[in-house]
Amino acid sequence: MGVHHYFKSLSDLEKLFRCPGRFKYHEHSVASHSFKVTKIAQFLGTVEEEHGEEIDWKALYEKALNHDYAEIFTGDIKTPVKYASEELRKLFSQVEEEMVTKFIEQEFPPQFQDIYHNRFKDGKDDTIEGRILSVADKIDLLYESFGEIQKGNPESLFFEIYQEALSTILKFQEMHCVQYFLDTILPDMLAEKFIPHSQLNDITNKIIDDSQK
Amino acid sequence: MGVHHYFKSLSDLEKLFRCPGRFKYHEHSVASHSFKVTKIAQFLGTVEEEHGEEIDWKALYEKALNHDYAEIFTGDIKTPVKYASEELRKLFSQVEEEMVTKFIEQEFPPQFQDIYHNRFKDGKDDTIEGRILSVADKIDLLYESFGEIQKGNPESLFFEIYQEALSTILKFQEMHCVQYFLDTILPDMLAEKFIPHSQLNDITNKIIDDSQK
Amino acid sequence: MGVHHYFKSLSDLEKLFRCPGRFKYHEHSVASHSFKVTKIAQFLGTVEEEHGEEIDWKALYEKALNHDYAEIFTGDIKTPVKYASEELRKLFSQVEEEMVTKFIEQEFPPQFQDIYHNRFKDGKDDTIEGRILSVADKIDLLYESFGEIQKGNPESLFFEIYQEALSTILKFQEMHCVQYFLDTILPDMLAEKFIPHSQLNDITNKIIDDSQK
Amino acid sequence: MGVHHYFKSLSDLEKLFRCPGRFKYHEHSVASHSFKVTKIAQFLGTVEEEHGEEIDWKALYEKALNHDYAEIFTGDIKTPVKYASEELRKLFSQVEEEMVTKFIEQEFPPQFQDIYHNRFKDGKDDTIEGRILSVADKIDLLYESFGEIQKGNPESLFFEIYQEALSTILKFQEMHCVQYFLDTILPDMLAEKFIPHSQLNDITNKIIDDSQK
Amino acid sequence: MGVHHYFKSLSDLEKLFRCPGRFKYHEHSVASHSFKVTKIAQFLGTVEEEHGEEIDWKALYEKALNHDYAEIFTGDIKTPVKYASEELRKLFSQVEEEMVTKFIEQEFPPQFQDIYHNRFKDGKDDTIEGRILSVADKIDLLYESFGEIQKGNPESLFFEIYQEALSTILKFQEMHCVQYFLDTILPDMLAEKFIPHSQLNDITNKIIDDSQK
Amino acid sequence: MGVHHYFKSLSDLEKLFRCPGRFKYHEHSVASHSFKVTKIAQFLGTVEEEHGEEIDWKALYEKALNHDYAEIFTGDIKTPVKYASEELRKLFSQVEEEMVTKFIEQEFPPQFQDIYHNRFKDGKDDTIEGRILSVADKIDLLYESFGEIQKGNPESLFFEIYQEALSTILKFQEMHCVQYFLDTILPDMLAEKFIPHSQLNDITNKIIDDSQK
Repeated sequence: MGVHHYFKSLSDLEKLFRCPGRFKYHEHSVASHSFKVTKIAQFLGTVEEEHGEEIDWKALYEKALNHDYAEIFTGDIKTPVKYASEELRKLFSQVEEEMVTKFIEQEFPPQFQDIYHNRFKDGKDDTIEGRILSVADKIDLLYESFGEIQKGNPESLFFEIYQEALSTILKFQEMHCVQYFLDTILPDMLAEKFIPHSQLNDITNKIIDDSQK
Repeated sequence: MGVHHYFKSLSDLEKLFRCPGRFKYHEHSVASHSFKVTKIAQFLGTVEEEHGEEIDWKALYEKALNHDYAEIFTGDIKTPVKYASEELRKLFSQVEEEMVTKFIEQEFPPQFQDIYHNRFKDGKDDTIEGRILSVADKIDLLYESFGEIQKGNPESLFFEIYQEALSTILKFQEMHCVQYFLDTILPDMLAEKFIPHSQLNDITNKIIDDSQK
Repeated sequence: MGVHHYFKSLSDLEKLFRCPGRFKYHEHSVASHSFKVTKIAQFLGTVEEEHGEEIDWKALYEKALNHDYAEIFTGDIKTPVKYASEELRKLFSQVEEEMVTKFIEQEFPPQFQDIYHNRFKDGKDDTIEGRILSVADKIDLLYESFGEIQKGNPESLFFEIYQEALSTILKFQEMHCVQYFLDTILPDMLAEKFIPHSQLNDITNKIIDDSQK
Repeated sequence: MGVHHYFKSLSDLEKLFRCPGRFKYHEHSVASHSFKVTKIAQFLGTVEEEHGEEIDWKALYEKALNHDYAEIFTGDIKTPVKYASEELRKLFSQVEEEMVTKFIEQEFPPQFQDIYHNRFKDGKDDTIEGRILSVADKIDLLYESFGEIQKGNPESLFFEIYQEALSTILKFQEMHCVQYFLDTILPDMLAEKFIPHSQLNDITNKIIDDSQK
Repeated sequence: MGVHHYFKSLSDLEKLFRCPGRFKYHEHSVASHSFKVTKIAQFLGTVEEEHGEEIDWKALYEKALNHDYAEIFTGDIKTPVKYASEELRKLFSQVEEEMVTKFIEQEFPPQFQDIYHNRFKDGKDDTIEGRILSVADKIDLLYESFGEIQKGNPESLFFEIYQEALSTILKFQEMHCVQYFLDTILPDMLAEKFIPHSQLNDITNKIIDDSQK
Repeated sequence: MGVHHYFKSLSDLEKLFRCPGRFKYHEHSVASHSFKVTKIAQFLGTVEEEHGEEIDWKALYEKALNHDYAEIFTGDIKTPVKYASEELRKLFSQVEEEMVTKFIEQEFPPQFQDIYHNRFKDGKDDTIEGRILSVADKIDLLYESFGEIQKGNPESLFFEIYQEALSTILKFQEMHCVQYFLDTILPDMLAEKFIPHSQLNDITNKIIDDSQK
């Protein structure tokens, strides 16, 4: 029993990989995904605040940091399985919740249990912080799939992920931060230069010529 | 549509790792686990045959080769989740079955569909071949956990796996092949020498002394 | 001495990689290659049977499962070395055979030695099962090299492997299963879509437009 | 120019490994280290709050999330180099600061620049949040080195790291959260069971005996 | 104290990777980089000798083998940091030198200290051997970056490295070996064929057609 | 044709691993092994020189750098195969030689062919440089196997390698450098401290106590 087990569990999240076996060029652990989502949520919250929205930063950070913690107990269940039927989905959520509850009651001293029950609740609710989390989670997924597509991974899976992530982001397009993302960040991502191998010849000749002037 | 997708799926099994993030010294893919289980089942069947049992080799090989194929569709769902409730377990089996059925109907030409429905059925039934598969599956798991324990992996998980695997094997102890395993193979596994670092000094001195005689 | 060493040797096959250092995107162990070859042989045998040929399934599975087992003793000898001269090739085969024989005599109890001598013999003979093994071995090699080419590996080695594998398969083109492979599976493999990075812009705009209707 | 480069830089932190080449059993990226430090800081802040201290949660999360971000620009400079002389240390801090400043001015739109200048400042100041960050950073380092020692990594480097981390934590021993760590968490970490290989025999015999009762 | 520590340090160079986290397809350790630079320098020296220049081979080999040894003490400091200011650069060099000096005095017996002080000095001086080292170091870097570009790594970093390496080589273009490199080796590198995925269809059809003649 | 292929082949040596699949903690490429052997040979030559022996440094460096180059053509052939019979060993050497010869004639311009024929000859002859190479090669192998044993790799293979390496070194014990190795370096290697996990408790308590004085 003890917080030691909780601290130790954090490093299990470093070893839990997303979509195991599919990322060819860059694997992503649940730990580093959680970090990136929190940093993206931080930026999105800043955009909202600039537009006059009020952000409960403590809540936003808690939601983002903990949003995938339960994967320690359940492992990587493929999405189609999870959503195969409404009944199965509900049962899975219930089991997940019971496992988290059991963990908190076993490992945390009583005075901290309520706080952690709250922190480990599903954070994607209708509050502005919950919606920012939903968007940030998908922006990171978009970047992860873009990283594979850009390097030439031919698996159509990453196109499906890209499309699904973008479609989910668009469901929140009334938010200031989503507008900012669509107007300012996404175009830069898509405009990334890719200097093909075939231009090496020209570049090389130009450098040699220049050196001889 | 097509058998091409089936052939291609085989290499997905090479990238699907068992207990992701836990094996420190030697990771095991579902593909190579299936290979080892089939080879172990081959030996166990040979022992049974020597004791006068009749083995349906075609059935045994089919069961062993395909016993984890469905993991392509479901991913690595942690055992405690799978067995959290009888209801969930049943629903889960049902989803798995539906996914396999759908795959066969989409990818295989009609003339081969019945054959593959049969091949992808759960093989661990009460026939002698089904029981050999149950034992072979656990013997490989025993070796996998032994490999980690022997190299000093301190995670208690591998002791739990070792114990669970051995207990399951013992449920079949009336079988000739299990008796053979317990009497002849397991003692050799446990007797494996481990030459500690501290003996290097003595060995070194002995070699140097011998060279000077 | 003992079957324990044989069981343990199976996991050595998980650590023995094919063409070490050449596969950039996906490495293949001898264990998982053996698994895939056996599964492919299973399908090819099914096609033959459908065309009225008789298959000795026990023989086919034994041949496929064990066809590369001897690499445990010899390691990865590059093909040009192996075939540098007829004399060298013969000597190598002889050494390989002696090593397998010695292993069986050391590790297996007498009552199983004949069975394993038979199982570890070179399986690529002129029987229908031997020819199916030859084809299945090359189909897996074709897929392995296709996997690298498709992801953009510029090493010409994989084109050479692809060509050599296809040429060998074609030597067996009078077989039903080879006809089936050429007519039905290979075209699907070659038709695999590859959605290039450059289409991301269009796809993205389309998704955004659709979401705003 | 753009926030896209900032978002993209987050995944560079996934590829930046701590103490490159030294961790044998478990490598740690700067991204996942930042995640763990933030989660540990969250717990430490909770302990302080329970003892009546007031925590500025927004400040604490910002400090923890960003505390190693500057490593993107500077790489892994070995500590003895960094601290070789007071002069070098100062110059180095100055260069780091200039690089962060330049990045912010290049990539962030003007309205966000002040906010990010503030977020990327060195967070280990004398505020309670700054001190919690100092402790959390070292607790994670303690766990990282413990992980290697426990698995038998013989490099004395990890003992030095362990000692240095613990000594730094002790400098903050007047804090409630450090007292809690020393009294409740550290003893559990040190009490971790390690079931040695040599006990396998007994365990095995016990399981077999039990199964035969 | 002792030469044992020096021998052991060599294997630290096997674990020190160049540009950590950037090479996607092929990572390069300082040890293997040093090997390649020495082999390239050997060839360049041979070209110079053929043109009548006199080479001090002992000096050339010592310079090439040891040119990055000091990275053991300093780690991977990113170039922009190192060269951020002349003052910082000088201080870094000084610290590096002091660390090497201290290591030699601690680990080597007195009779070898002068020899190793000399061997570990910065080798890129104005002697012909020093200039050959400068060129060989950049030729290996050119090949390393070419390897990534050729395989489709979209990071512009490798184009920058390629250009910087080539520009530095051109600063030595009055040397025979640089002329040889530019005239004979570089064109072959740039002419490397890249058989695209799209040609697989034609090649396949050609092989099938040929087999049926 | 061209020296470009020779330069490119050097990076193949970075991808060729020694004893593939056996080293658990630290893999060694042929490139980095060649580097370490050359550095060790440099030290051994220095010891000999100090004792009045004359060293042909150019020859020594050439022998050490190139001693495993031929493995590019032959791959990793397991030693027992190579030495299975005198006849096979001879044939094998012959094939290796022919492959090297063919490579030189194909890739090198005529004016450099003799030089490279000489450089790629087997270097382990009876000259002092040849004997230093034999010793340096085995010292590196001794360190490689020691590295595995020290970290607890239970495979007896590494004890066999350690013993074989030491025995070979002892065959040259009349050399000054071997005496130096046995008297001064080996004892330091064997005396390496290994601080076990069980001492963590004491160390921790001592640090805490000290901090409270």
